[in-house]
Amino acid sequence: MEIKIHNGKSIMAEPGKSVYQSLRDSGVYLVASCGGKGVCGKCRVKVLEGTYKTESAAKLKKKDIGDKIVLACTTFPEEDILIEIPEDSKLVIGDKIAVTKSQGLLEFLRAEEPSLTPMVRKILLTLMPPSIEDNLSDLERIKRALAENEINGMRFSHGFVQNMAGSLRQHTWSVYLTYTENREAISVVSPERARHYGLAVDIGTTTVVVYLVDCTDGTLLDSGVTYNSQMRHGDDVITRIIHATEGGALTELRDAVVNDLNGLLSPMIERNRINRDDVDCAVISGNTTMTQLFWGIDPSSIREEPYIPTVNDYPVWKAGTAKVLINQQAPVYTMACVGSYVGGDITAGVLASKMHRNPEVALFMDIGTNGEIVVGNNEWLITAATSAGPCFEGSGIRHGMRATDGAIESVKIDPETFAVELGIIGNAPPVGICGSGMIDAISELFFAGLIDQKGKFVRDLNTDRIRIEDEGPEFILHRSEEKDILLTEADIENILRAKAAIYAGMSVLLKEVGLSLNIVERIYIAGGFGNYLNIEKAIMIGMLPDMPKEKFSFIGNTSIAGAYLCLLSEKMRREAEDIARKMTYVELSVSKGFMDEYMSALFLPHTDIDLFPSLKEKYG
Amino acid sequence: MEIKIHNGKSIMAEPGKSVYQSLRDSGVYLVASCGGKGVCGKCRVKVLEGTYKTESAAKLKKKDIGDKIVLACTTFPEEDILIEIPEDSKLVIGDKIAVTKSQGLLEFLRAEEPSLTPMVRKILLTLMPPSIEDNLSDLERIKRALAENEINGMRFSHGFVQNMAGSLRQHTWSVYLTYTENREAISVVSPERARHYGLAVDIGTTTVVVYLVDCTDGTLLDSGVTYNSQMRHGDDVITRIIHATEGGALTELRDAVVNDLNGLLSPMIERNRINRDDVDCAVISGNTTMTQLFWGIDPSSIREEPYIPTVNDYPVWKAGTAKVLINQQAPVYTMACVGSYVGGDITAGVLASKMHRNPEVALFMDIGTNGEIVVGNNEWLITAATSAGPCFEGSGIRHGMRATDGAIESVKIDPETFAVELGIIGNAPPVGICGSGMIDAISELFFAGLIDQKGKFVRDLNTDRIRIEDEGPEFILHRSEEKDILLTEADIENILRAKAAIYAGMSVLLKEVGLSLNIVERIYIAGGFGNYLNIEKAIMIGMLPDMPKEKFSFIGNTSIAGAYLCLLSEKMRREAEDIARKMTYVELSVSKGFMDEYMSALFLPHTDIDLFPSLKEKYG
Repeated sequence: MEIKIHNGKSIMAEPGKSVYQSLRDSGVYLVASCGGKGVCGKCRVKVLEGTYKTESAAKLKKKDIGDKIVLACTTFPEEDILIEIPEDSKLVIGDKIAVTKSQGLLEFLRAEEPSLTPMVRKILLTLMPPSIEDNLSDLERIKRALAENEINGMRFSHGFVQNMAGSLRQHTWSVYLTYTENREAISVVSPERARHYGLAVDIGTTTVVVYLVDCTDGTLLDSGVTYNSQMRHGDDVITRIIHATEGGALTELRDAVVNDLNGLLSPMIERNRINRDDVDCAVISGNTTMTQLFWGIDPSSIREEPYIPTVNDYPVWKAGTAKVLINQQAPVYTMACVGSYVGGDITAGVLASKMHRNPEVALFMDIGTNGEIVVGNNEWLITAATSAGPCFEGSGIRHGMRATDGAIESVKIDPETFAVELGIIGNAPPVGICGSGMIDAISELFFAGLIDQKGKFVRDLNTDRIRIEDEGPEFILHRSEEKDILLTEADIENILRAKAAIYAGMSVLLKEVGLSLNIVERIYIAGGFGNYLNIEKAIMIGMLPDMPKEKFSFIGNTSIAGAYLCLLSEKMRREAEDIARKMTYVELSVSKGFMDEYMSALFLPHTDIDLFPSLKEKYG
Repeated sequence: MEIKIHNGKSIMAEPGKSVYQSLRDSGVYLVASCGGKGVCGKCRVKVLEGTYKTESAAKLKKKDIGDKIVLACTTFPEEDILIEIPEDSKLVIGDKIAVTKSQGLLEFLRAEEPSLTPMVRKILLTLMPPSIEDNLSDLERIKRALAENEINGMRFSHGFVQNMAGSLRQHTWSVYLTYTENREAISVVSPERARHYGLAVDIGTTTVVVYLVDCTDGTLLDSGVTYNSQMRHGDDVITRIIHATEGGALTELRDAVVNDLNGLLSPMIERNRINRDDVDCAVISGNTTMTQLFWGIDPSSIREEPYIPTVNDYPVWKAGTAKVLINQQAPVYTMACVGSYVGGDITAGVLASKMHRNPEVALFMDIGTNGEIVVGNNEWLITAATSAGPCFEGSGIRHGMRATDGAIESVKIDPETFAVELGIIGNAPPVGICGSGMIDAISELFFAGLIDQKGKFVRDLNTDRIRIEDEGPEFILHRSEEKDILLTEADIENILRAKAAIYAGMSVLLKEVGLSLNIVERIYIAGGFGNYLNIEKAIMIGMLPDMPKEKFSFIGNTSIAGAYLCLLSEKMRREAEDIARKMTYVELSVSKGFMDEYMSALFLPHTDIDLFPSLKEKYG
């Protein structure tokens, strides 16, 4: 059987495999916050031709069913079918995902150190060919040459030794020996191969980013980004931990993300005409769960109280062990994690922000799929993860979506007429609302008096923009014959929970060290979401603290930036390890103060308006 | 199709597979010095029923062919056949293979050091269970506990970390941590598992010997010996190197010997009710080629001038890498090799002999499949391999065989009547002649005047014991209706070559250091063959130097003895490495003096009778 996509390709459909699964296996990803379990109702497709069986229609309206709109995850073709995929069902990688450019980072490194110090070094060895009189074994011959260069204590793996003898003879005893900073030999290569390469990898819960870097001069040669294929098993880390442990799919999840990495890598290797064996080091940066899954380490204890990761400070293991298709002896460095919900991506972030080097107290926040916060300076660092959840990325919001074409990113509401003015990414017809749009919308709804301090719709207003459905009241952002774009009371509740979690997290963290938000001199906002955040609106809804706009800095994807720094500099690696060790990890979910702070922060902007002096002055 | 063995089992026969191959694949080994290539003529079987196709009968007599005797390696069944395997075609492992008992070695170790120091140590860790307040990761928790015990700098492999978290929780945070002397963690096990075990392995060209040892107290729990299955590809190391490199069968040879080891191990593990994971260290001892094949390292450069091994001083690699079925993280220590034809078995031998500790100059010789010689004392050691070849083990000798039941081990010839008196192992009817029998026979033939100084039969003597066949003259050791047991002139030539190589090797080695045989205070004879050697006769034929009998010591299989010592003692491991480093390796095949010495030693007993004063006095 086949599934033909309207204006698209045809794919194979196996009996018993849902339309969602078949599409996914052919690389066509649909939005499915629930991981394809028939719960979230987002993977809607329209069947134009052919018969099918569909199991659940709970999330669909009568009109949808009449229009032959189905949930792809619970629909099974019975013959060849032709489908149409609505724009808002398509999972499209944001081409605006912030990838910090490497140029500034490289300049920084050059200012720090006279030369680059990647994990792998090369030394040119010109060996005396063996003779009857000088009959040392090949390995002892290499050791002797290294000793003449004052390099001692080298370790030689079995893989290295197996390949060494042939390579030495092939290159007539004049070779580059590559070895790690920990003095483990990697390979013996031709003296023509002076250049070598490395990978910086950001394994996000949602996306995987790979940088291919020339380790000889630090040039960023190529980069790529793709969805983390683990997404088919749910949007958030908890769902994936459950799938890995209770679902017995640890290996499947591990292979999924490793294949994503390898898949990104192959065309880069080809484009840049690089010998795979010359890619001889890599740095992996990810949250604690992503990191454990990447290494195939059972993540179950992360989810169970007292929430303990198996490793924070990872040993350097090999690419062969990681199943990454570069030189199999290449060292793979893992950005050190801090705790169960603050991982190596945050260590990388702090490193890239440089807040750990300055005396001023700074606050770092990464609002991606999770929301992590770090407060501190060159003397102390404290961190926590907020249970913000991925709502700003569209998950759990009726018409929520990522910041891609068709997403409502800004909202204005006339307080008199309640007329709505929308800003849409790509100037396309709106198909949903992204994180910055949500923040805008709530801020506007509140100041127009459409919702109260608790985020509940004010009843009895003279507007047809608010309507009451079975599932509760909802606000019509955009009317269309095809589909209205809505923000429901349940959506608003979710967003308020997320913003309250972030604000309460910051407050509790500062209270842990006996300080208040006033002490903070600078706020770094990292993560893909960060770049499109309207700071004033975020302050208005009480998500960010009430501070002058110039104190906020957007610093993009600092996970990959930190990984890039560590790929090229030993000093940065040691600094990163130091950051991770130095950070005090607070488990907010069991913090006594947190629940009070959280409850207070659930209001708009906050129960205690004195915390928001500029708002008090402006609207008070 | 089936091959039924008379008075034995039935085995499957595939079309195109020779009888020799089919038998071999079912574990029935025939003598085949040539590796089953139709050359040596030893794998004779008699077909009792059924039709077959046979390719070569060059080595068979007319009578044999009439009796339906065929070479198994060039015979292919065409239907079910019934065969009979003559005793002298069966490859039987010598139950008399000298396995040095461990008791003396253990007493020696106890006298040397207060406690045993195997490669793997155990430490009982009682960890504080994690809590919200004490939320270190599992790995950092282990590191903290180790630091409290003043153990720092431990390395943790990926395999260790993958299994650690579950084991810690299963044993409620009270565990034994096992780790190597090089501070690499191996495993975390229940506090009930205080004992741990190790393997000492001797990989001979012909046989594989395994000791299972309790590393807690040094007890030898079990041992086993089997043929090295690589034998199917020829008796000597050169044939195997060719098969590995030109034949592309490196992996096949590697797997063959590793399977032998694993096959010996399995019943031992079962009999002793040991958890395989508690076998957590191993020592491998073998000649240079056997060692490289065991590790899957291309041995080609050993055979090509200037004869260079890939490694002499092996890093410690893991059982998982070696494919040995014990704890996959277990360190596998390899006895250091010295040169292309003097391997770790000789290092082990010197260690076991203790000649490296004494001021008196000793000579160590291991006459197994190869013949290695070491001369020296506590200040210097020099070594070489003689190209003696495996003739004393029966290879290349018409009716040569190992020292097993039915082998002629002693010969007396009346100088008047030429009547022959035979001593036969197991008091069975004779089926062939083993090494000690050959030495006896040549000595007697010479002193009875039947052969001259060059080993040629004296013509025109009045005896029917000597007869001239197409292939030359031969001496009838034993007459029988079924088969005469012979020693041919070609056999004698082979034996004289072997004894000359050994004697010349000793002389040249001593000359290299400017000494003569007079300086030697003690001669250690190691190897399976050694124990049955008649020293006086060996002196008479000029194989051993003319020294008083009490200066000779038989020390059995010192390869396994040295491996056992290294398994249990760090001091012994360091001493062994020191021995290998200290030994000067001389390549006899290119030594200028060697050819002269060899030519002189080809005579009986020697061209220069003054070198054998006792013989000169007695018979001169």
